[in-house]
Amino acid sequence: MTEIDRVPIRQVTEQGENETEDVVVRELSLTITLNNQEAATLLCSPTNLNYLAVGFLFSEGLIENKGEIEKITVDEGKGIVQVETKEDKGLDTKPLFKPLIASGGGRGTPFHSSASGQHQAKIKSQTTILPDEVFTLVNEFQHRSHVFKATGGVHSAALCDTKSILVFSEDIGRHNAIDKVFGECILRDIAIDEHIVITSGRISSEILLKAAKGKIPILISVSAPTNLGVRLATELGMTLIGFAREKRMNVYTNAWRVVTQKRG
Amino acid sequence: MTEIDRVPIRQVTEQGENETEDVVVRELSLTITLNNQEAATLLCSPTNLNYLAVGFLFSEGLIENKGEIEKITVDEGKGIVQVETKEDKGLDTKPLFKPLIASGGGRGTPFHSSASGQHQAKIKSQTTILPDEVFTLVNEFQHRSHVFKATGGVHSAALCDTKSILVFSEDIGRHNAIDKVFGECILRDIAIDEHIVITSGRISSEILLKAAKGKIPILISVSAPTNLGVRLATELGMTLIGFAREKRMNVYTNAWRVVTQKRG
Repeated sequence: MTEIDRVPIRQVTEQGENETEDVVVRELSLTITLNNQEAATLLCSPTNLNYLAVGFLFSEGLIENKGEIEKITVDEGKGIVQVETKEDKGLDTKPLFKPLIASGGGRGTPFHSSASGQHQAKIKSQTTILPDEVFTLVNEFQHRSHVFKATGGVHSAALCDTKSILVFSEDIGRHNAIDKVFGECILRDIAIDEHIVITSGRISSEILLKAAKGKIPILISVSAPTNLGVRLATELGMTLIGFAREKRMNVYTNAWRVVTQKRG
Repeated sequence: MTEIDRVPIRQVTEQGENETEDVVVRELSLTITLNNQEAATLLCSPTNLNYLAVGFLFSEGLIENKGEIEKITVDEGKGIVQVETKEDKGLDTKPLFKPLIASGGGRGTPFHSSASGQHQAKIKSQTTILPDEVFTLVNEFQHRSHVFKATGGVHSAALCDTKSILVFSEDIGRHNAIDKVFGECILRDIAIDEHIVITSGRISSEILLKAAKGKIPILISVSAPTNLGVRLATELGMTLIGFAREKRMNVYTNAWRVVTQKRG
């Protein structure tokens, strides 16, 4: 399924009207099951559904690595991804089914309702980055966000090292975009921890906790953080960079990882 | 509680670094209860929590009008709004607790997982609007979005007639912003149906169905719709306008309500 759709529109300007066509992003209702139990239904872009399912289950703490996965069945037409693990630990339905509804993509984990990082391990990575490395990564990131350019409606996320983008994804949901990145890393055996995540979207407490789950030391957004995002990044030892655009950025927390010169 | 917070940052540009301060939006974890049963936990901006709670319960079909409400208790510190109704119909937990996770603010109604408008009445309103009226409303709307301007992180929504904005709200979540508008209308006895809604956010299926719940004939976004948003607007007889900026707009569906001249 493609990410976009064409629809007839009437375009109206001061100069008059004309009947034309516009490109809109596609939205799919996707149900993810884990060992035949419904884990969640997401609204998402209809691409890389296997990555989305695996990344979502990882973010929710329901799977840890590729080795646990027995089988993934994607039925795009019906909007279902079925994930089976070798060992069925059973869905702890309590956290997943808690009716959390988020500002920008609700996720029912126990972290969210308390908006607290107390269950999350502090990030100890000594990874550092130069401002120029951030600017270069963000520049590459912006260039790759092609669906957004066409339709104005998609978020992007990427996993990077300090030199380049390793995994890139797009989705109508900023949470999904990060889950797709994590899912691809897991299925393609790319390490997540010690790496950098870039997101086009706002950094709320949920996004921050998702990155913390991946043990990401440096989280970069083209957009703004919220106060809880900043507070959690401080608590969890994560370097949070916002408004990274062109040749400027704001470092909100743990600025020691942004260095003017690298050792060695 | 104010909508914004000040945090220390390190600002980095090509010219160098300086320690300064930035404004970030506040994010509150709010639990809404209906007759002492937990209905949902939302991440939201900490303003007009009574409007948000009432609007949310309206959007979910749990309350219909102000007359049903007995008492609203807001505890901002604890992040709880308790709504009591005169008659306790009981929470039909099934739709609310369905683990829907949305692209941009999950809402657990039965509409979403099917992304179908079949349970929603078709909108028959004969309301029409001139292009210039749309441009004027959007212009006023953009000017009022002041928190967004300060922090780059907030969505706005408004209820209008064809001449002016009647109710305006802001929230970190685009769903919440509309719920706050609806909640204010209900509590201040302002009719919702036959009116126009403007939103700063993308029009996904969820947003479309929320507006349909309010029997809104004309839905205007400064941003893009999704393909499901367009499909549902067609099915439900709603006029969907996107990319309304300056003196231009795209009319995606039911363009007959956008007229060049008014009768009478």
